[in-house]
Amino acid sequence: MKLSEIGEFGLIARFSPAFLKRLPEGVVGIGDDCAVLPWRRGERLLVTTDMLVEDSHFLRKEIAPRDLGDKSLAVNLSDIAAMGGRPRWAFLSLGIPAGVEVEWIDEFFRGLARAARPAAVRLVGGDTTKSPDRLVVNIAVVGTVRAGRVKTRSGARMGDVIAVTGNLGDSGGGLRVLLERRRRGRDENFLVRAHHRPRPHLDEGAWLAARPGVTAMMDVSDGIDSDLHRIMERSRCGAAVELERLPLSKPLRRCAAKYGWDLYEVAASGGEDYCLLAAIDPKSFASVAAGFKRRFGRPLAAVGGITPARRGLSYRLSGVPVRLGRGGFDHFK
Amino acid sequence: MKLSEIGEFGLIARFSPAFLKRLPEGVVGIGDDCAVLPWRRGERLLVTTDMLVEDSHFLRKEIAPRDLGDKSLAVNLSDIAAMGGRPRWAFLSLGIPAGVEVEWIDEFFRGLARAARPAAVRLVGGDTTKSPDRLVVNIAVVGTVRAGRVKTRSGARMGDVIAVTGNLGDSGGGLRVLLERRRRGRDENFLVRAHHRPRPHLDEGAWLAARPGVTAMMDVSDGIDSDLHRIMERSRCGAAVELERLPLSKPLRRCAAKYGWDLYEVAASGGEDYCLLAAIDPKSFASVAAGFKRRFGRPLAAVGGITPARRGLSYRLSGVPVRLGRGGFDHFK
Repeated sequence: MKLSEIGEFGLIARFSPAFLKRLPEGVVGIGDDCAVLPWRRGERLLVTTDMLVEDSHFLRKEIAPRDLGDKSLAVNLSDIAAMGGRPRWAFLSLGIPAGVEVEWIDEFFRGLARAARPAAVRLVGGDTTKSPDRLVVNIAVVGTVRAGRVKTRSGARMGDVIAVTGNLGDSGGGLRVLLERRRRGRDENFLVRAHHRPRPHLDEGAWLAARPGVTAMMDVSDGIDSDLHRIMERSRCGAAVELERLPLSKPLRRCAAKYGWDLYEVAASGGEDYCLLAAIDPKSFASVAAGFKRRFGRPLAAVGGITPARRGLSYRLSGVPVRLGRGGFDHFK
Repeated sequence: MKLSEIGEFGLIARFSPAFLKRLPEGVVGIGDDCAVLPWRRGERLLVTTDMLVEDSHFLRKEIAPRDLGDKSLAVNLSDIAAMGGRPRWAFLSLGIPAGVEVEWIDEFFRGLARAARPAAVRLVGGDTTKSPDRLVVNIAVVGTVRAGRVKTRSGARMGDVIAVTGNLGDSGGGLRVLLERRRRGRDENFLVRAHHRPRPHLDEGAWLAARPGVTAMMDVSDGIDSDLHRIMERSRCGAAVELERLPLSKPLRRCAAKYGWDLYEVAASGGEDYCLLAAIDPKSFASVAAGFKRRFGRPLAAVGGITPARRGLSYRLSGVPVRLGRGGFDHFK
């Protein structure tokens, strides 16, 4: 059987049960943004790791090495943010083809440092090694979090509000600009920058983790259409999203109009937004949202609600049910 | 400038100073077998990571997937052993080409479990992702060690005995058997097995870590000819090795004679032995070696001694200075 027949999530479902048996109390294994492990009294260790392979995850000719170094670390920091933690140490494995220029690698490290500095994370180890022709980057990040504040994907409850901490679709729009080789004006550059330089929502994650009303949290890496399924599986629930409530930037709206993109498709399935997706108790939502607005100067956007599991993931646009097909959102026939 | 002009160690020397500045007390960063980080009171966390890229580090057609899974984890466990620690948690990133069979991956995971079980290490996270054509394996392992027992590469002192915990060259011999496509008899299979299924010296490492006379320790991954340089750099010393004292297996001796290999070259530079290399205070050596023999039923082999830095790495064979050239060991001219 070919791997393509079962896909990444099928593969994880196939092998992970063997590794999830008899995990000690308080340990979270495969299936969340980070593994959760014991650390000091009252604190937990968070560990996450991400692999980027040239031509599958990035095009060496399209991304500046500094942006690649920055993004490689940022996507891991986003996983720490999703658990409500603070990143501390990073480990880099770099598989390098012989023809890569040292100056390229210097720039990559400058980007890594650019992402590490504001997050106060230190690169303390790794592995540099040969690769036949494609560059491979693997970063692991170790962080910490107060034991009572760990937010997983499994706590969402019926009726919870689904909220996101930032705009959706900018990164997906940036990828379209690149793939469709669009001429780059100010809007296009804004989107490409969102794609190349995601900002992990560490402060937002730590702040939300301290709110007891937040029942589940994860980061938006594959797009909410895919990521909500992860919360639905782990929390055994469904989710209903109102598309016009998705927070969308003006550059994305303008580019979607200009290039004929389905705006909501880009927002829901473009991926790599690296903002946070949270489920919040409806009784707490108003105060959490008001506090978020005060703290961060922008809204915590309510985009839908948690429903019974049998309802699956449903979308509405202007009150009418729609579904995400191959060509974008359309009405049921 | 091409990477090949400065090499892996040149690259590490180039970027690591920026990341070694202002590390907190007790933290060991880039340059040892593992990073050493704070954990509970009186204990330290050890973290190591290793990347294997198809066609650079293994040939998918030559190694059984079960052995690859086993070895991928074992090489990381060996780094934990080298610091005197116990492994606890493992994280796997797997970059998989679309054409790989699911059954191949099942076997890979069986191998991973085979190495994990005796070491009591749990796979608790990772990343499975696409790779265009070559399989990429990155494993990170987190372990722990009592604070006073951390053994680094930097503690070796003049006059210390250099010792190894196992035979050298079997893995290098196994690689030669594969590359030279030798007919596989019992000896050849013994060597290939050493190459494909290294056994991390975890018990030996933990036992040696508890001996105060052990001043420095690392694992033999590139061969002692390369690895001793790492201890020399970090401990600012030289090393003198007596080649006839290197512990060599009978299968390796027989194959070297049969195929015309330079036996000592294979032993000193074949690499991937994954036994441990230790520097031991000469006043303690006799009692440490006797205790090791009682505990493990085989000798701790003294192979040389630590010398002043200006002496560099020197070899003697039957009392005569020799050097390792391109074609093996030869006399100075």
